[in-house]
Amino acid sequence: MGISAAERFEGLTNCLNSNRPTESITHVELHRPEKRNAMNSAFWSEMVTCFNELSEDPECRAVVVSGAGKLFTAGIDLMDMMNNVLQPEGDDTARISWGLKKKIRKFQETFSVIEKCPKPVVVAIHGACVGAGVDMITACDIRLCTQDAWFQVKEVDIGLAADVGTLQRLPKVIGSQSLVNELALTARKMYADEAKSSGLVSRVFADKEAMMAGALEIAGEIAGRSPVAVQGTKINLIYARNHSVADGLDYIATWNMSMLQTEDLMKSAQAALEKKSPKTKTYSKL
Amino acid sequence: MGISAAERFEGLTNCLNSNRPTESITHVELHRPEKRNAMNSAFWSEMVTCFNELSEDPECRAVVVSGAGKLFTAGIDLMDMMNNVLQPEGDDTARISWGLKKKIRKFQETFSVIEKCPKPVVVAIHGACVGAGVDMITACDIRLCTQDAWFQVKEVDIGLAADVGTLQRLPKVIGSQSLVNELALTARKMYADEAKSSGLVSRVFADKEAMMAGALEIAGEIAGRSPVAVQGTKINLIYARNHSVADGLDYIATWNMSMLQTEDLMKSAQAALEKKSPKTKTYSKL
Amino acid sequence: MGISAAERFEGLTNCLNSNRPTESITHVELHRPEKRNAMNSAFWSEMVTCFNELSEDPECRAVVVSGAGKLFTAGIDLMDMMNNVLQPEGDDTARISWGLKKKIRKFQETFSVIEKCPKPVVVAIHGACVGAGVDMITACDIRLCTQDAWFQVKEVDIGLAADVGTLQRLPKVIGSQSLVNELALTARKMYADEAKSSGLVSRVFADKEAMMAGALEIAGEIAGRSPVAVQGTKINLIYARNHSVADGLDYIATWNMSMLQTEDLMKSAQAALEKKSPKTKTYSKL
Amino acid sequence: MGISAAERFEGLTNCLNSNRPTESITHVELHRPEKRNAMNSAFWSEMVTCFNELSEDPECRAVVVSGAGKLFTAGIDLMDMMNNVLQPEGDDTARISWGLKKKIRKFQETFSVIEKCPKPVVVAIHGACVGAGVDMITACDIRLCTQDAWFQVKEVDIGLAADVGTLQRLPKVIGSQSLVNELALTARKMYADEAKSSGLVSRVFADKEAMMAGALEIAGEIAGRSPVAVQGTKINLIYARNHSVADGLDYIATWNMSMLQTEDLMKSAQAALEKKSPKTKTYSKL
Amino acid sequence: MGISAAERFEGLTNCLNSNRPTESITHVELHRPEKRNAMNSAFWSEMVTCFNELSEDPECRAVVVSGAGKLFTAGIDLMDMMNNVLQPEGDDTARISWGLKKKIRKFQETFSVIEKCPKPVVVAIHGACVGAGVDMITACDIRLCTQDAWFQVKEVDIGLAADVGTLQRLPKVIGSQSLVNELALTARKMYADEAKSSGLVSRVFADKEAMMAGALEIAGEIAGRSPVAVQGTKINLIYARNHSVADGLDYIATWNMSMLQTEDLMKSAQAALEKKSPKTKTYSKL
Amino acid sequence: MGISAAERFEGLTNCLNSNRPTESITHVELHRPEKRNAMNSAFWSEMVTCFNELSEDPECRAVVVSGAGKLFTAGIDLMDMMNNVLQPEGDDTARISWGLKKKIRKFQETFSVIEKCPKPVVVAIHGACVGAGVDMITACDIRLCTQDAWFQVKEVDIGLAADVGTLQRLPKVIGSQSLVNELALTARKMYADEAKSSGLVSRVFADKEAMMAGALEIAGEIAGRSPVAVQGTKINLIYARNHSVADGLDYIATWNMSMLQTEDLMKSAQAALEKKSPKTKTYSKL
Repeated sequence: MGISAAERFEGLTNCLNSNRPTESITHVELHRPEKRNAMNSAFWSEMVTCFNELSEDPECRAVVVSGAGKLFTAGIDLMDMMNNVLQPEGDDTARISWGLKKKIRKFQETFSVIEKCPKPVVVAIHGACVGAGVDMITACDIRLCTQDAWFQVKEVDIGLAADVGTLQRLPKVIGSQSLVNELALTARKMYADEAKSSGLVSRVFADKEAMMAGALEIAGEIAGRSPVAVQGTKINLIYARNHSVADGLDYIATWNMSMLQTEDLMKSAQAALEKKSPKTKTYSKL
Repeated sequence: MGISAAERFEGLTNCLNSNRPTESITHVELHRPEKRNAMNSAFWSEMVTCFNELSEDPECRAVVVSGAGKLFTAGIDLMDMMNNVLQPEGDDTARISWGLKKKIRKFQETFSVIEKCPKPVVVAIHGACVGAGVDMITACDIRLCTQDAWFQVKEVDIGLAADVGTLQRLPKVIGSQSLVNELALTARKMYADEAKSSGLVSRVFADKEAMMAGALEIAGEIAGRSPVAVQGTKINLIYARNHSVADGLDYIATWNMSMLQTEDLMKSAQAALEKKSPKTKTYSKL
Repeated sequence: MGISAAERFEGLTNCLNSNRPTESITHVELHRPEKRNAMNSAFWSEMVTCFNELSEDPECRAVVVSGAGKLFTAGIDLMDMMNNVLQPEGDDTARISWGLKKKIRKFQETFSVIEKCPKPVVVAIHGACVGAGVDMITACDIRLCTQDAWFQVKEVDIGLAADVGTLQRLPKVIGSQSLVNELALTARKMYADEAKSSGLVSRVFADKEAMMAGALEIAGEIAGRSPVAVQGTKINLIYARNHSVADGLDYIATWNMSMLQTEDLMKSAQAALEKKSPKTKTYSKL
Repeated sequence: MGISAAERFEGLTNCLNSNRPTESITHVELHRPEKRNAMNSAFWSEMVTCFNELSEDPECRAVVVSGAGKLFTAGIDLMDMMNNVLQPEGDDTARISWGLKKKIRKFQETFSVIEKCPKPVVVAIHGACVGAGVDMITACDIRLCTQDAWFQVKEVDIGLAADVGTLQRLPKVIGSQSLVNELALTARKMYADEAKSSGLVSRVFADKEAMMAGALEIAGEIAGRSPVAVQGTKINLIYARNHSVADGLDYIATWNMSMLQTEDLMKSAQAALEKKSPKTKTYSKL
Repeated sequence: MGISAAERFEGLTNCLNSNRPTESITHVELHRPEKRNAMNSAFWSEMVTCFNELSEDPECRAVVVSGAGKLFTAGIDLMDMMNNVLQPEGDDTARISWGLKKKIRKFQETFSVIEKCPKPVVVAIHGACVGAGVDMITACDIRLCTQDAWFQVKEVDIGLAADVGTLQRLPKVIGSQSLVNELALTARKMYADEAKSSGLVSRVFADKEAMMAGALEIAGEIAGRSPVAVQGTKINLIYARNHSVADGLDYIATWNMSMLQTEDLMKSAQAALEKKSPKTKTYSKL
Repeated sequence: MGISAAERFEGLTNCLNSNRPTESITHVELHRPEKRNAMNSAFWSEMVTCFNELSEDPECRAVVVSGAGKLFTAGIDLMDMMNNVLQPEGDDTARISWGLKKKIRKFQETFSVIEKCPKPVVVAIHGACVGAGVDMITACDIRLCTQDAWFQVKEVDIGLAADVGTLQRLPKVIGSQSLVNELALTARKMYADEAKSSGLVSRVFADKEAMMAGALEIAGEIAGRSPVAVQGTKINLIYARNHSVADGLDYIATWNMSMLQTEDLMKSAQAALEKKSPKTKTYSKL
């Protein structure tokens, strides 16, 4: 008995809204619609709590992230940030710098928890996705958007080099370095079509309703398959991104020397032999 | 006198069919059409023998890989695999794991030999390319397909994280990480158009006949040029993929300090000055 | 008083023409139109001087590179190269090799200075961009071209593996490894449409006039923003390309612990709060 | 007002005893003397709490670690471990493995917190230092021991490859790979003299009293110097260990571009010009 | 039933003599005493065969390598090498270089097989160990020598940079880079005392007889312990040498998630609780 | 005809004194004895000029570095540095930081030129070697000292983390990480005996006269051997330090595919067959 992590988590948040459309899918919603889902201090810490709990929650097998209201997110809450980052404390430049580094590392961790969560994260973007919103979605696994969505690497416009993930992940996420540079250096908006052709998103939907249905369908495809296979796939894809092919091959061989001993392999193979979907089988929690 | 490696190789195989459309091009055909070119134990070892021999065969300057029958390959032969991988031996989990790792490393080597072969490999895909077929084609250099081709990262459907190359190479082969993740996590089919727009293949042909003509033409372009230039290019492209730009530049400078002393440079430059194709010259074997 | 580096540089060059369309943008033009902007010995050393000076010139905040005359560049000046590289000196093969490596490293440095220059470099390509021209543009940050432009990785045609950057950078610049390999192994031409769809360029313009206007507009967007933000962005994007995401995040946190203490942040944030462009503010030189 | 982290921490622990011999030095003592300081579950979590708090405590500038009673530590508490690690849960081998990996990562973190704590950690070893004790001391910065101390890489004796740090850090800590291998493969004891000549410890003392005085003296030397200099030194030494020299030089240049702006530099330089110890100056907290 | 790999191997060799002093220890002897154990073409290929077979032989749990006759090895057989390497074939410098690289890679593999063999290799050196002998012993795990032994990095004396392992492994094997450089650049002899103090060997014995007894004792300590623990230790020590601490910790956690499920852990732990040596238990083959 | 780089260089310097004890050995002397060879601005730029010229000078085959007067060097000239580094310019913290990073990179280059110079550098230390002196000697290849020499990593005493090489190179130069940390964190002096036992120096001499004779003898051993072998050895040793063993082996195989084609190999081998020193042969310049 007992309540799952996702349930416990539901009541606690101010900026995030979390629910479970199916037993094994968690839907996390940026939920400050009156502030255009701008990311404030509360948001930063709730994200960490939320994804750390999802990581540990064996019920949860896939996550969908979206934004409440008219747009996905306006990015960082500028007033909030100015009261934080722009009011540094410390007796000299070195000590102020020391404090700033700690803050940046903490903000970075906010989005890195998405990547460290072994459950795949599908993000569904409508309307605007600005600044820290781009940092955030590059840490998700699968990106979808509506036809009216647009994206903006905004940091250069407020006088800084983006430091919570965009500059580090975007070049590994889309295939045109020229486009990455143009977006990051000029802060121009990119619309849904270019987001699709450049590979930032893998699908574009007519409107938010269609997109949410699509996101849940993809999440359902994932959640219905063996969690041993699914979560091992996410972990190894991220490992591969950061290592040479040789290192990646060695790592997954070491990984699979135990994971291939799962009963899921036999169950799934049987489904395949019976020409059925792997989703027709039930897999133990992980 | 003497027979080339390719000739010697021809008689030995059960799953591969090898022939030489021109003196310097070897065509390797997956050849179990009655089994949809499914990869069984014999296939795994023949691949290694075949490409190791092609690596050493100075006649061979380019390789074309395709599938016999109705489709490219249905991937792993599931019955064969279940009799192998799913029947692990060993006195305890550690010993079973040890044995599994050795098997995985051996399967990985099957496709890595394609990458280690310094002769460029053009792969021509028609119909289906499923599971281990995707692992295989990501280890080839140039990918072509027919309009009716489709691709499926199937491993998640049989309960495992893909461990013979797809997860390691696909993110470095195509430009959309979102698409890579979607394909690997949901096992959805990708058709020719998306394969082209995502960069998995660089050309799509109307049918198999046109594709094979195209593949041979590309292989002919490669085989007619200086093997010093061609094979040095393949080796350095693969090196660059796994290293920083600085390391890549140092490596090719060390490589070319001898390779620029080739007579091919003068021959090719002369052709260029005469406004002729480099293929009008004859280059020594390598 | 005092002349800027860009001014001092102007009078010195034979192959490059440099001017300043605005106070903060430098336009560098390949300027041997009668030789199709072929790169000769003078060019190689002028490039290094030019970009080293631009790196140090605090007036310069963005660079546009283009070619004078009918095309961008025909690549290396073959006669010049044959008199140089093909006439190696040294008492034995080892000593000849030693000398060749030094020459290659020097040529590599020619284009690496573009990457090491912290000011973003927009390259505008019309007509042909051949051989060393491709090596060069892959070291630039943003690539634009005209509808009539074409690109050719030419080195394999003159008997060598490209050793001044193309093989090292192209795979990290565009998203289709199959296309990279095809271009590098067959030297086939790629036209503007494929350059756009593959991500080599991020925009295509109808003609050179429109492109130059577009290039200057992009450069203007960049030059008008905080140089602390802009140059930090370029440096961190290049760092990220060569390192894991974890290393990239650590590096920018260390970078920004001081850079966030810039007054530009407050200025830019103020502009944002006032719903104005960051270009409406004036930023100190860097 | 306000109690420091170290003070708050003092009351909480069962296995660790923490006190402050001087204002800026924290002494952490393994304190289960009746169990030969064997590491049990409580120990693992207290270590993390303790060092995370010390990391944040601006009063603390250096840490000394030692063991209460007759010896430093007998290593892991075998009974405790058997009830934990040897009673794995999970529905199949894959799920048991998944749980084991999480446990190992958590245990690894126990000692990695020592390395992540920017305050230098001096460890003083007397009597025995066995198994996980060796894993622990390799994560400390400076190692001292008594003449009667001995060290034993014990893991091979209980049937496993050491997985909480010894195999990863010991080869980077001492200079003889042959000795590392011998110790790890045979579990033979190494005594103080060999520990000194091999570089595992940098000093040997006659007895525990002399050693503790020595450890406090070294800690005092460290705690009296600029924390900007000291903690920057620790962080950069660890960075250098894991990266190439080129990467290390780039990192510290980025680090010091702010840290050199400390007032400590002028204070320390002044002391140097006055031929006084840097400890004669007072440095702000960090 | 059948004969073990070691038995099959025994009859085949010309330069190596192999026997089994105990069931689980294989003794490999360089055996061309009349030629001072100089390494000729036959030796290079026998080494590969020998260690590949030992890798697969589940009986073999530890290996001892020594030299027959008056000294360990005089290094490469110079006449043999001059007839091989100094008579290169190929139509131009590039093709000769290509052939040379293949030969070097093959020679490198000769010693890398020692490292890839998961069973620990103890090497016992008496008299001289010259040139390729040093390359060889740096690929072994534990180095012992007699009081009359000396070592010489000879390659610089015959006009080349050592290319089969010494320059790559020696800096990671001993702790003084100054000494490594001096030895490699001047080819001076190093005697047993300096070999011990620098950490090249971990023990020095009075004479060959004592050393062989010592080597067998160490091998016995290793062979009597859990092969899961022992071979996992070797593999992870080598992995750690080539990677950062963070990568090393991740790798062993992935490794041990299966390996900790061995029955050897319980057996060994039981022995420990009974205060007995782990060698008193019997462990299954691996 | 013409004068060699070393000759041209001699007249130019204020802080360095350069002469040629033999045709192929250059002796570079720190020569501000009245200022205890403290390193000032002139020194930093002369070092770069000096070693860049030596790199290009084919006469020079080995370098000896020592200090004039009573000691090797007192390190940085503190007054000079305070007028430089401590008087930073710039309109805000970011711009001051930017300028500081450029200065640090330039200082780093001062000592990195020693490492980039392919000719081996023997450094002979007497009396004191303090602060930047330690940074410098860690970039040299072979370190010798007198019995009265002492070493001090001084930077922590003047309020900074050492940023011109010590923290990056020292851990790769000596075998005891505990000692490295102790020296860098406490600035304690290390005397000749500990420098020898820790491997910082490879030989200790009774006095300066004996040391200089020893240094010249070692340099003579190096200068008399094949420069192809010697300089290839230095380059590959440094490469190996920064890369995995696998990368190091690949690199030297690529290096030696041309370098083994040197006539020096035959000359040296002949000397070896005649039982003569390789120094009895004459090798062409490189």
